[in-house]
Amino acid sequence: MKIAIAQLNPTIGDLSANAKQILDAAKQASQNDTRLLLTPELSLCGYPPRDLLLIPSFVKSVAEELSNLAQQLPPNIAVLVGTVENNPDAASKGQKPLFNSIALLDGGKVQQIFHKRLLPTYDVFDEDRYFEPGYQSNAFSLDSLKIGVTVCEDLWNDEEFWGKRNYEIDPIEDLVNSDVDLVVNLSASPYSVGKQKLREAMLKHSATSDRVPILYANQVGGNDDLIFDGSSFAFDRAGEVVCRAKAFDSDLVIVEYDRDKQDLLPASTVPLAETEEGEIYSALVLGVKDYARKCGFSKVVLGLSGGIDSSLVAAIAAEAMGKENVFGLMMPSPYSSEHSITDAEALVNNLGIKTQKLPIGDTMTAYDKLLEPLFAGTEFGVAEENIQSRIRGNLLMAIANKFGYLLLSTGNKSEMAVGYCTLYGDMNGGLAVIADVPKTRVYSLCRWLNRDREIIPANVISKPPSAELKPGQTDQDSLPSYDILDDILDRIIHQHRSPEEIIAAGADPKVVKKVMKLVARSEFKRRQAPPGLKITDRAFGTGWRMPIASRWLRLN
Amino acid sequence: MKIAIAQLNPTIGDLSANAKQILDAAKQASQNDTRLLLTPELSLCGYPPRDLLLIPSFVKSVAEELSNLAQQLPPNIAVLVGTVENNPDAASKGQKPLFNSIALLDGGKVQQIFHKRLLPTYDVFDEDRYFEPGYQSNAFSLDSLKIGVTVCEDLWNDEEFWGKRNYEIDPIEDLVNSDVDLVVNLSASPYSVGKQKLREAMLKHSATSDRVPILYANQVGGNDDLIFDGSSFAFDRAGEVVCRAKAFDSDLVIVEYDRDKQDLLPASTVPLAETEEGEIYSALVLGVKDYARKCGFSKVVLGLSGGIDSSLVAAIAAEAMGKENVFGLMMPSPYSSEHSITDAEALVNNLGIKTQKLPIGDTMTAYDKLLEPLFAGTEFGVAEENIQSRIRGNLLMAIANKFGYLLLSTGNKSEMAVGYCTLYGDMNGGLAVIADVPKTRVYSLCRWLNRDREIIPANVISKPPSAELKPGQTDQDSLPSYDILDDILDRIIHQHRSPEEIIAAGADPKVVKKVMKLVARSEFKRRQAPPGLKITDRAFGTGWRMPIASRWLRLN
Repeated sequence: MKIAIAQLNPTIGDLSANAKQILDAAKQASQNDTRLLLTPELSLCGYPPRDLLLIPSFVKSVAEELSNLAQQLPPNIAVLVGTVENNPDAASKGQKPLFNSIALLDGGKVQQIFHKRLLPTYDVFDEDRYFEPGYQSNAFSLDSLKIGVTVCEDLWNDEEFWGKRNYEIDPIEDLVNSDVDLVVNLSASPYSVGKQKLREAMLKHSATSDRVPILYANQVGGNDDLIFDGSSFAFDRAGEVVCRAKAFDSDLVIVEYDRDKQDLLPASTVPLAETEEGEIYSALVLGVKDYARKCGFSKVVLGLSGGIDSSLVAAIAAEAMGKENVFGLMMPSPYSSEHSITDAEALVNNLGIKTQKLPIGDTMTAYDKLLEPLFAGTEFGVAEENIQSRIRGNLLMAIANKFGYLLLSTGNKSEMAVGYCTLYGDMNGGLAVIADVPKTRVYSLCRWLNRDREIIPANVISKPPSAELKPGQTDQDSLPSYDILDDILDRIIHQHRSPEEIIAAGADPKVVKKVMKLVARSEFKRRQAPPGLKITDRAFGTGWRMPIASRWLRLN
Repeated sequence: MKIAIAQLNPTIGDLSANAKQILDAAKQASQNDTRLLLTPELSLCGYPPRDLLLIPSFVKSVAEELSNLAQQLPPNIAVLVGTVENNPDAASKGQKPLFNSIALLDGGKVQQIFHKRLLPTYDVFDEDRYFEPGYQSNAFSLDSLKIGVTVCEDLWNDEEFWGKRNYEIDPIEDLVNSDVDLVVNLSASPYSVGKQKLREAMLKHSATSDRVPILYANQVGGNDDLIFDGSSFAFDRAGEVVCRAKAFDSDLVIVEYDRDKQDLLPASTVPLAETEEGEIYSALVLGVKDYARKCGFSKVVLGLSGGIDSSLVAAIAAEAMGKENVFGLMMPSPYSSEHSITDAEALVNNLGIKTQKLPIGDTMTAYDKLLEPLFAGTEFGVAEENIQSRIRGNLLMAIANKFGYLLLSTGNKSEMAVGYCTLYGDMNGGLAVIADVPKTRVYSLCRWLNRDREIIPANVISKPPSAELKPGQTDQDSLPSYDILDDILDRIIHQHRSPEEIIAAGADPKVVKKVMKLVARSEFKRRQAPPGLKITDRAFGTGWRMPIASRWLRLN
């Protein structure tokens, strides 16, 4: 029996277009005699639909679209479609109103409905907000093959693999105990660095310890801050990869189940990314491309300072949008170094993007004059530095508004962590492309980009980083070196360590306390930041929920 | 037996200061021979601690503070303290790592621990993210009185009152079945318009149908977007209010349980607010006061346009911070009407706040000149309108940065809904004071404010609202009248209605479609808005979780 995985890129809430993607994949797969097609979790509405799930007419439309789709599918192909279902017992039993479900479409009808059993409610996931877990083990028979159905998180509770239980029940254990021939998993699993290796290690463990083939269908595409990497795959009972779909692109892969061998046969396999940098770069390119496309933008604008952050974002944007659709604005001030312009120009040449230079000196003077009655006698400081950054932010938004461009902001994760960025200035933008990329990783990405030819000008990488908001300024005037900073930040943000623990690990107590305070005091900035593409397990954004008016990190 | 309710205003994460509040209340109560003191839910760390709960050292510090507090309490007074507890079974049973708990402190020790059973995970609440529910009914004996313990949501599942179950179990039913003499509830229940009436109606129903006295201790104070109104109260078995604490202020109330009557005796009762406007105004004043105080600001700045929104926010700020701590900046442009200045000046006089006038015409010219190479030949439009708003936003932030003021933004909920506001312009601020107040309610609040004497100048209320970003502009050039708009918005935002349903209710189809599209397209602005004080059941902010790159409302 041939089984296909449709690795789809839905747009949240665009039900008819998403249904058409499923239909097209089903038609294509059925031409190859495929008997069963898998699509990702919530493939009909896209993942995550978030509070659209609170709108009854939305849920109703999903059901209607599902029923239409069932009628349009080609004969002889069954399709598993991710959908939402009303919970009829919600009011009487005090349960949540919906299920995160999988519909088995076959013969023009919805044949069976399965409910997701393990509901992630951590990090960016809010599934308990909407869904009741399914209480039954999910399986169906197709041409006398018994197929177990799981949805994303349902497979993430292998106690032996994790060394602990994450949930009380283990759906795959239940399925194996009921003698399924194979297990399918319909996922919408967001990308983070190294996640694919983790997924494969985990499912290899399940496949081999339970002696069951597993097919894993993942969503692909960017939805706001989340990037879904695809890389759908299948394991045979021996724990060998028999197929793997593309990373960061839509795909349709077909794999054969051999009834005699009771196992999946080897099929086409796309290799894993060779480097983390290559993987991250592809993720960010897809994130920009899809955010722009799904919001209706065809062109982007960004500020070019000649620094490494804006250079990297420009390169990503050129790859994502096409170089002719990227506009890089240079906005030198009297404090800008000469290389800020020459380096930006070299980058523009390397990338072949459009550019313009608008020196902001006169506009700075206009603000100085205007504020004279209030600021006379005070010293040049953060207020004046921020004015420059906000003039630039204003110019960029004026261009974005005038020509309908998407403004990309260029701040990195280290800056966002310590607040080394100006709210309403360089933080401006519809999408923060590298907001989850620490500064040290920005460097390694640029070096990786330059592996064959110079894309990021050499001087951009070698010069000391500076905001150039006052004469002779460098980042290290007020921050520790980025190696040290990123190590401390990782312990604070990812590992949730206390200052004492970080100091015990060898860091300078003064530096740790300073960084801790900066992280705490910058919460108000992060709250107002644009969505930032998530590439780690702990990004600022929808999964980072810290109070602002709090005294915890501030004092301790 | 005397029982006291300490209606406390904790700062999130300020453990030692919060513990001191509890200790002070216990000392005061014990001077009145009080045997039991109730404090709010999570009184030790403040509610909501949000992702601070993911930091193990934070949880450890809470436990240490609890144990210290137990040792410091006066003799002969037992105290119920809201705290977090580690779940020892988390890893082995696949449960959540913490409990939302109540500790009974008595005799210098933690005598007993109770766990919250119903965990709200909707709107702004994310309790399933952190907590495992308690599986046992919670009660203890004190001087041979059997007292049932519930935490906030535990009481919000009265099936008869709601006409449906909200959760599978009903903790109060369990307690009544185990013959408790009275029930206490420790809450952190955020304010919304009319919420206190709902709370009292619900608990009156429980008290009378179960024939049990109920004491309800609520948190008070502003924590970011949430305002806790206090108004703690108690019902006797007949469902009569026997005491009610202040609204929007800390308080300590003592009530007596009569063993012969097996009931609570009447004590001091603060009346409910007479008008919704009075209630909302108090809520917003407290929200501003606490956000500023807990973030360390003593002065605020805001832009004064002579319009009704900024006038209302100035009045709230003057009440919250003291008039000498409010700085109102007037920033007229060539498009500003004369009354924009005269009305703002009248307001400044009425309030007695500080002010300054900075005309932005020359700065606008500087931008026009600078953008000339790019904008030549294009028509004046939204880009130019936004430049003005962003110049103002830049000036306000410059002043905030220079002098350490908190910038208050002045946009109302109707504007935020349809995007009739400029990102990085008038949306700038650390706190959006009236972001959850619809425009029609802004008018009613101003009329209410003027009930005894003119605070908001009459002309501010009577003139047609205008952003004054181009000559002769009024809001109604591009929006329906606010009566109509607010009605449609309420149906979209609060009732989650579809366009078809809103049209069926009598609204103009064209207007509905336009508003729907505006709401959908403004999601990217709202994502970057400052925290807005929540006064309704459905505010934009932490409880509003809509995708941006979505096609749902946009197309339908």
